[in-house]
Amino acid sequence: MNIAKTMEEMGQTARASARILATTDDHAKSTAIRSAAQTIIKRTDQILIANRQDLDEAEKANLSPAMLDRLKLSPALINGIAAGLDTIAELPNPVGQVISTSKRPNGLRIDRVRTPLGVIGVIYESRPNVTADAGALCLKSGNAVILRGGSDSYHSAKAIHECLLEGLRSANLPPASIQLVPTTDRAAVGELLKGLSGNLDVVVPRGGKGLVSRIQKESRVPVFAHLDGICHLYIDQDASLEMAIEIVLNSKMRRPGICGAAETLLIDTAWPAQHVRAIVQSLQQAGCEVRADALIQKNVEGCLPASESDWNTEYLDSIISVKLINGVGEAIEHINQYSSHHTESIITNNDETASRFLNQIDSAILMHNASTQFADGGEFGMGAEIGIATGKMHARGPVGVEQLTCFNYRVYGSGQIRPS
Amino acid sequence: MNIAKTMEEMGQTARASARILATTDDHAKSTAIRSAAQTIIKRTDQILIANRQDLDEAEKANLSPAMLDRLKLSPALINGIAAGLDTIAELPNPVGQVISTSKRPNGLRIDRVRTPLGVIGVIYESRPNVTADAGALCLKSGNAVILRGGSDSYHSAKAIHECLLEGLRSANLPPASIQLVPTTDRAAVGELLKGLSGNLDVVVPRGGKGLVSRIQKESRVPVFAHLDGICHLYIDQDASLEMAIEIVLNSKMRRPGICGAAETLLIDTAWPAQHVRAIVQSLQQAGCEVRADALIQKNVEGCLPASESDWNTEYLDSIISVKLINGVGEAIEHINQYSSHHTESIITNNDETASRFLNQIDSAILMHNASTQFADGGEFGMGAEIGIATGKMHARGPVGVEQLTCFNYRVYGSGQIRPS
Repeated sequence: MNIAKTMEEMGQTARASARILATTDDHAKSTAIRSAAQTIIKRTDQILIANRQDLDEAEKANLSPAMLDRLKLSPALINGIAAGLDTIAELPNPVGQVISTSKRPNGLRIDRVRTPLGVIGVIYESRPNVTADAGALCLKSGNAVILRGGSDSYHSAKAIHECLLEGLRSANLPPASIQLVPTTDRAAVGELLKGLSGNLDVVVPRGGKGLVSRIQKESRVPVFAHLDGICHLYIDQDASLEMAIEIVLNSKMRRPGICGAAETLLIDTAWPAQHVRAIVQSLQQAGCEVRADALIQKNVEGCLPASESDWNTEYLDSIISVKLINGVGEAIEHINQYSSHHTESIITNNDETASRFLNQIDSAILMHNASTQFADGGEFGMGAEIGIATGKMHARGPVGVEQLTCFNYRVYGSGQIRPS
Repeated sequence: MNIAKTMEEMGQTARASARILATTDDHAKSTAIRSAAQTIIKRTDQILIANRQDLDEAEKANLSPAMLDRLKLSPALINGIAAGLDTIAELPNPVGQVISTSKRPNGLRIDRVRTPLGVIGVIYESRPNVTADAGALCLKSGNAVILRGGSDSYHSAKAIHECLLEGLRSANLPPASIQLVPTTDRAAVGELLKGLSGNLDVVVPRGGKGLVSRIQKESRVPVFAHLDGICHLYIDQDASLEMAIEIVLNSKMRRPGICGAAETLLIDTAWPAQHVRAIVQSLQQAGCEVRADALIQKNVEGCLPASESDWNTEYLDSIISVKLINGVGEAIEHINQYSSHHTESIITNNDETASRFLNQIDSAILMHNASTQFADGGEFGMGAEIGIATGKMHARGPVGVEQLTCFNYRVYGSGQIRPS
């Protein structure tokens, strides 16, 4: 296979499909997605057989148990994938929404209208469900998509992709609306990152830090992604112990491996020492390793020492770094220095302090008295998301169907000309 | 001067200033801008002397009359620069605006709030007024800015920049909020495009195609810009001759050298031949060179032949290419193929045809029965703009204070934790 030529052609057919999808009505898009969901349920056995092939190869290649776990499908998980598609089908159609309208003194009406981005490239690793989610989210938002799954999940992705194609067929939409790169050769990723001669508008990487970092470095098309989720919690002097314990435990331990999990806990020195002890002990009792500064180590048994590198680390595990800090000002400074600009939360009963925290930190999501694990498109009411972005351009925070659109201006006149 | 080191330090002080500006109230920002305007008026003579220095050097260097014209200031133009600053000072403060708010079933309130982008780099050529406009727009939107003027206008830019610094001083804002690169060495541009170690968030080039194209190719930071303004007019079969003549003449001839000037006129073959003749003749009488397809050449005297390259050319001059085309479908195809995605306008009394045109063309600005020369931030009610963007990411169309911001999510809870 000539990979450069294959990818170039995929870009061209994707662009042609995107032109059609941009003006496709919502009914056709939703029909395609629902029909894909039904096909996925119908073909559960076939998808499981394909997944078994991937698992066999993965075991031979000695993949880690965590990777195998991410890869493995079950009838329940396949039902979940189909249900996810139905949720996306029911979302409001973002395309054509009038974001704002204004009337100029000369009678011109200027509307700002949501339009699709065009062609989206999604590059992902071993999670086979991304094939369905990303395909449906891009379609719902009127975009064509080129999916590039990991070699580990190639057979599973292919089986799911065939269901998506069946959905497109049933709604008479062009099959190139959702394409799967037909090779696991890494050169295909390189071609995507070069932009397919202008036929690719944005790249969304889904996977580990290695993948995201490579794509951010090499891509010549805009990237919607986050590299790290070094999320912070700050317990202010005006926090109640009870709420603090609940939020800290949930932020770290509900699922320690997601990007919205807290990695560093900052505590105001003015908070009572026995509260600090209670928080740290409750983390330890929940099975969390605590790496703390010298003062806390003295105060509570069983803490490991935190070093400079701990403030820069996304553990994605049952480990947390803890530090005493002089008030909200120092907390803001620490976070602006070490944060990956994903999500930070303050626990306090003082609204003024909270307002300072929310105003002065430059992160995508800032919270007051809530768990950082709420950083998620579903929890934000977006229905589903293709990922979370920490860049400042275009999409920030959870990337749902609305964030997969841009806009244009539509100016309605009655013969207006501009005076010289 | 060690340019890499100088630029690196400018990035650091800009970032520190940006942190302060992000929470500076509007009164202080507007005071600084108004006081800069007053200083500019007061120092008219000094600015003219600095401008004379630039003009003398430009004459010695044999700059083109067009370039000299762009460079040359007068007391009236200086008054205009000051008035422009006052307009920017009076704009609504975009920072802190709540774009949307929603309440989740669990009681969480999620606000989306406008925040500054951070540090903006503006790279421009010989227009000295950009120093004032860009400085004030970035400040009003809460951003720090690093200005890099052309070597041709260095003394003028420096004199105007000193007035901006005076404004910052009078409002007690950090002087590094608006910095001017203190060298005309091109290496400084290279350093900006590398991103100043993460201390530069976006680059805005203002100048000719050579400059913009170089920056789009080399920049490792996002760029807000348009390379070309190949704007189209389409006269539909349902257009009235009178309106068509007015809009065509204004779109091309009001100011042929601006990016919103029309470059190609497409005419429906179903429009009467005598109307086509009338339009072409009125362009010729207004002093416009008409390059037309074979049919029009036969129909009207004095047309030059249009070749393939004409459909790709931004003349920025009193020249227009004209082509007969089979209805709106072909017009849409032609425009999607040749347009630079800046501005296109349809002239028709048929709303359905207009709606097809506005829905199916992928450009930043689409117009119905209005002159393409309205493509301008002022005309859009933005007060002022730093440029026009044709990319799909973030800012599209005129880039005013609102487009110089991004947003974050602010989540207000009362102790919510996420169920597992």
